[in-house]
Amino acid sequence: MQERQFSFHPIGHVEHAVPDDEVPRRRRDLVCDVVLAPELAPALDGIEDYSHIFVLFWMHRLAGGPCRLRVHPRGREDLPLTGVLATRSPHRPNPVGLAVCELLERRDYRLTVRRLDAFNGTPVIDIKPYDLYDRVERPRVPEWWLQRSGGKGFSALE
Amino acid sequence: MQERQFSFHPIGHVEHAVPDDEVPRRRRDLVCDVVLAPELAPALDGIEDYSHIFVLFWMHRLAGGPCRLRVHPRGREDLPLTGVLATRSPHRPNPVGLAVCELLERRDYRLTVRRLDAFNGTPVIDIKPYDLYDRVERPRVPEWWLQRSGGKGFSALE
Repeated sequence: MQERQFSFHPIGHVEHAVPDDEVPRRRRDLVCDVVLAPELAPALDGIEDYSHIFVLFWMHRLAGGPCRLRVHPRGREDLPLTGVLATRSPHRPNPVGLAVCELLERRDYRLTVRRLDAFNGTPVIDIKPYDLYDRVERPRVPEWWLQRSGGKGFSALE
Repeated sequence: MQERQFSFHPIGHVEHAVPDDEVPRRRRDLVCDVVLAPELAPALDGIEDYSHIFVLFWMHRLAGGPCRLRVHPRGREDLPLTGVLATRSPHRPNPVGLAVCELLERRDYRLTVRRLDAFNGTPVIDIKPYDLYDRVERPRVPEWWLQRSGGKGFSALE
């Protein structure tokens, strides 16, 4: 890690009523709100023309905790020990989360999204629209990733 | 913007020989290196099993600058004034960049990637593998986005 340090202010936070320990299990269908600071409402103008957005968030409960260099993906010891940056594990050098979410509704400075796997109260760093350049036609993933999904492979994920 | 503030240390930086003012024009084919801190090399183990990665970076030249709430996408005044969070403009509340890159090679703590539209020397915040859940089959985008691409629409972007 380098000595330099950068800082940011959250632009909003995540709101839902799902208890923390249920978020991982329910993440695929979780519907929640991203509530921005009211003065940022104009910065969302036009977001409703996208079907999907990226949400970048700060996993505040993990900040300052130990950074692991290698982890078992999903905490499953039957999956190979893997570099943490080669997984989506939250135990990263910088606890920044990234989720591709379906945008269901925008009301003023509030976005309702599906598939944001963040705890209630999580600070949000940025919102970015998902466009056609973000779609990789046939991404290659490790064997363990497909095992994790029940070994059903690519087509089962459509 | 909220009062709270969070900070992070860069995990590495971007290296290439392309002058800043040529990066936007050459971004689709730009090949460059993401050089991590050497002690983080083990955190990359297994990354080579992915064809694509997300690179999150800090647009350090813009940090502390004025945040615009609405912008003309790509600085083109013929495109409609749009909320900055509904564009990929760098003039965001937090100057965090996100790029989907093709991973060409890993050597120890160095990744060679294609399509990272960041200036030489840009601090890197995080690397995340791109997996099948990140691929949206038919993302909807605004009309101006398709115009920007020459009006050729979806199939021209494959």
